[in-house]
Amino acid sequence: MSSARNLTAALRRARVPRPRLALRPIQFTPLTARTFSASTRNADSREIKFTSDAYPNLKRNPNFGEISADDVAHFKELLGSQSAVIDGVTTDATDDIEPFNSDWMRKYRGHTRLVLKPGNAQEVSKVLKYCNERKLAVVPQGGNTGLVGGSVPVFDEIVINTSRMNQIRSFDPASGVLVADAGVILEVADQYLAEHDHLFPLDLGAKGSCHIGGNVSTNAGGLRLLRYGSLHGSVLGLEAVLPDGTIMDALSTLRKNNTGYDLKQLFIGSEGTIGLVTAVSILCPPRPKAVNVAYFGLESFDHVQKAFLAAKGQLSEILSAFELMDGRSQSLVRESTGNKYPLEGEYPFYCLVETSGSNAEHDMAKLESFLESVMGDGIVADGVLAQDETQFQALWRWREGITESLSHLGGTYKYDVSIPLSDLYLLVEDCKARLTEMGFVGDDDSFPVRAVVGYGHMGDSNLHLNVSVRQYNKEVEKAIEPWVYEWIQKRKGSISAEHGLGVAKREFIGYSQNETMVKLMKQLKSVYDPNGIMNPYKYI
Amino acid sequence: MSSARNLTAALRRARVPRPRLALRPIQFTPLTARTFSASTRNADSREIKFTSDAYPNLKRNPNFGEISADDVAHFKELLGSQSAVIDGVTTDATDDIEPFNSDWMRKYRGHTRLVLKPGNAQEVSKVLKYCNERKLAVVPQGGNTGLVGGSVPVFDEIVINTSRMNQIRSFDPASGVLVADAGVILEVADQYLAEHDHLFPLDLGAKGSCHIGGNVSTNAGGLRLLRYGSLHGSVLGLEAVLPDGTIMDALSTLRKNNTGYDLKQLFIGSEGTIGLVTAVSILCPPRPKAVNVAYFGLESFDHVQKAFLAAKGQLSEILSAFELMDGRSQSLVRESTGNKYPLEGEYPFYCLVETSGSNAEHDMAKLESFLESVMGDGIVADGVLAQDETQFQALWRWREGITESLSHLGGTYKYDVSIPLSDLYLLVEDCKARLTEMGFVGDDDSFPVRAVVGYGHMGDSNLHLNVSVRQYNKEVEKAIEPWVYEWIQKRKGSISAEHGLGVAKREFIGYSQNETMVKLMKQLKSVYDPNGIMNPYKYI
Repeated sequence: MSSARNLTAALRRARVPRPRLALRPIQFTPLTARTFSASTRNADSREIKFTSDAYPNLKRNPNFGEISADDVAHFKELLGSQSAVIDGVTTDATDDIEPFNSDWMRKYRGHTRLVLKPGNAQEVSKVLKYCNERKLAVVPQGGNTGLVGGSVPVFDEIVINTSRMNQIRSFDPASGVLVADAGVILEVADQYLAEHDHLFPLDLGAKGSCHIGGNVSTNAGGLRLLRYGSLHGSVLGLEAVLPDGTIMDALSTLRKNNTGYDLKQLFIGSEGTIGLVTAVSILCPPRPKAVNVAYFGLESFDHVQKAFLAAKGQLSEILSAFELMDGRSQSLVRESTGNKYPLEGEYPFYCLVETSGSNAEHDMAKLESFLESVMGDGIVADGVLAQDETQFQALWRWREGITESLSHLGGTYKYDVSIPLSDLYLLVEDCKARLTEMGFVGDDDSFPVRAVVGYGHMGDSNLHLNVSVRQYNKEVEKAIEPWVYEWIQKRKGSISAEHGLGVAKREFIGYSQNETMVKLMKQLKSVYDPNGIMNPYKYI
Repeated sequence: MSSARNLTAALRRARVPRPRLALRPIQFTPLTARTFSASTRNADSREIKFTSDAYPNLKRNPNFGEISADDVAHFKELLGSQSAVIDGVTTDATDDIEPFNSDWMRKYRGHTRLVLKPGNAQEVSKVLKYCNERKLAVVPQGGNTGLVGGSVPVFDEIVINTSRMNQIRSFDPASGVLVADAGVILEVADQYLAEHDHLFPLDLGAKGSCHIGGNVSTNAGGLRLLRYGSLHGSVLGLEAVLPDGTIMDALSTLRKNNTGYDLKQLFIGSEGTIGLVTAVSILCPPRPKAVNVAYFGLESFDHVQKAFLAAKGQLSEILSAFELMDGRSQSLVRESTGNKYPLEGEYPFYCLVETSGSNAEHDMAKLESFLESVMGDGIVADGVLAQDETQFQALWRWREGITESLSHLGGTYKYDVSIPLSDLYLLVEDCKARLTEMGFVGDDDSFPVRAVVGYGHMGDSNLHLNVSVRQYNKEVEKAIEPWVYEWIQKRKGSISAEHGLGVAKREFIGYSQNETMVKLMKQLKSVYDPNGIMNPYKYI
């Protein structure tokens, strides 16, 4: 960033003290996805504690059948292909199966001995029908990039992995509607769309690994929900298989279709507990012709709020991301990457503001005027604007790199919460004060907690509170939970804004949903999955 | 429009033959809503045919209770207020009750003798619990502006009208979230938001009468879905009362909340068949600072498609409406209003293009460049751009006035369909050819069909096919149905894009939903409403 050009006339008029902002639009290319490094992915997962040990209150449901050699033979015949069945029942396939048993955060680990990879909805239907009759429990699994242990087994549930359903079925440039199999990787879908000047209306760190079926099943939010909205609005149709083998073909490509209950909505965000999504039809916006990203240093959270309101008002229809990072999150990225800060000084808060539009000149004029106002008014203390693709990627890494930087340090207690904007960062401050008072926080190895970090999607009022620990520690966990959930409940927030419930949050649902809602959810689960075989021990 | 200024330099370069386009941004104010004229509203509704006669296959469900004087006394005590009960059971209140029995199109008419107007969710709960126990059927009713007979009774169902639940509960300008009672009129909500520089993310002709609870219950689409998306994306929370009296408080104001099944989605578009929506929480965008509207004449539907793709590509994030009107629809408006056409010549197709943005100068530059390209390339034959509020309103009336112009002519068979864009207008041509061949279409009164008209929301691939008849005629109806539904089914379209099912479309659902989906919908209905008391004889 040291090559930043000098101030524009507009900024000069605003008498900004340090002339670091330079304005030049750059061409848009997608972010480089967070790659799950080999060290994380291939590490011996047997070191990870079993979920059944970490959650001793979870007991295997005695109504579920035990997988027999006959079952395995049946599945092998049914799916035909050699690569479609990983059999740890009649053979020793532990090493092949372990990656499907555990999650990338090394926090959840199941005991499955069977992984199935059906190739289409018909095969999924046959598998589920058989499992339902035999009462064999299953876990639908996409790219296995979830954060709440929702996509790995707890006991011996059969993993049904979607990776062999990976075809793009159609794309219509006139309407922008993409139809694709559930197992298509998000980045692959987006690259395909890029060739047709369109954009997948969802972007998130795990895009290089996650499957779009998993995105839909978890109602993923990500970096640009602010601009492109929720999947409940953009998903036009779904194909899903119900536990009894019924194939639900609701794969409409129509933007409007008011003919009956919109049942597909139930499968968006239900984490594979009432059915397995096998294909998705989704409305994709035209790819923006110009994208800009700015990175700010700010003196307080009050300044961050003011900057956000100014961005919303002034950047309006071209604002595509407004991300918050606290000072500690950025020092962690610096420590783990060794990179120099984008700004000269250090600040308690940083923001990343992205614009996406159809006219580079207009976008730059709006951005310039916005920068003039927030810097002129002293809302933003210092800032830098990416001037080329490399700088664009580099700035985004200061936001995107936080998760990985934390993962290098040991364990992380992750809380993904939604709180009214004015109180958003107060949670981090209160949590840090509490853990400090309790003697848990410190710089040397005698303290369990290394850092209390806050960052997230300011534009969606969505905070990621991360407590970085030297190792997972029950005392620390007890100090945070249920305190954190009570704190959120008091403010009518959500204990899981975008990560979902999985194993991690299921018992805390009552902090964000009232008894009536939980009762209605359980009723729905029993209607669709009376035997409870779909992703058990999770969700509600 | 005669004061239109001369061409901009850009347009001059494009050598447009007739210099009618003048470019000046105007301030945005909401459209004047379609007012339901007194003549339509207060006409003697006893002339309208009873729905039970028009649909002789509908029989009153013998399991339903008959309303007694005791029931009426119970409701009077329960609701307290004199104005909350219109009692045609123990008194002769026919005249007071008739407006709740019939729809504004004068097409549907029920036999109710009781109208209840509860004041809040608790009162709705008590009413529904009692009705459910007594098996008294009910019809939820908002502004009664629907087009498919969904909001009026068929037999003696009790009307539960939401007009007394009409308070705006809260608005947060930082997040843009509005919480309001179901009975707030759409235009009232939008005017309230205008005072806070925000916009209701839905706009439609009936805004002066329709209730936002009804909008949500019918998943209304309207004029700007293209820009602000579906209610499935913008509605953040709902309060609804289930048939057994359970109050479902899912009135979240959070943009993200992944804690369990998103049950509120089921109430969006379910036409009051599983519960009655009593309040809505909705995400509202900042009000645009500049709005422009242009009106084009085009030589063919192929030109219309090209103009739409050009608008999507070039106007991109500021495009807020792209409406299609055929030549016949515009001549009907001219005949009924006596107004002079906005353009000098006559064309087979017209489009209305609206932009909404945050910067008048930028929007105008984009619009100018768009106009230069579509007029320079000969896609648009002639056009005019509104230069002030009066002209803005006047141009919109050529689109908004079609429904009312048709209503002056006699009856209208209305089809609200979604079809892939390339075939959108073919339906009108095929329908007209069919009815002409069958000898139904002609200028003098011996022909039952006066006109076959097509218009609609091009941006959503949503066509309104209207067959204007001198009076409702079973022969004509039989010539159109089920032919029109088969035509749509072949193209995988929707037989009801935004109007819903109601009485009008219920028996045709199979043309847009497969058997599995219909079975799953019926299962859901029986879960929520086992006695079937909610809005019976309609929907599925």
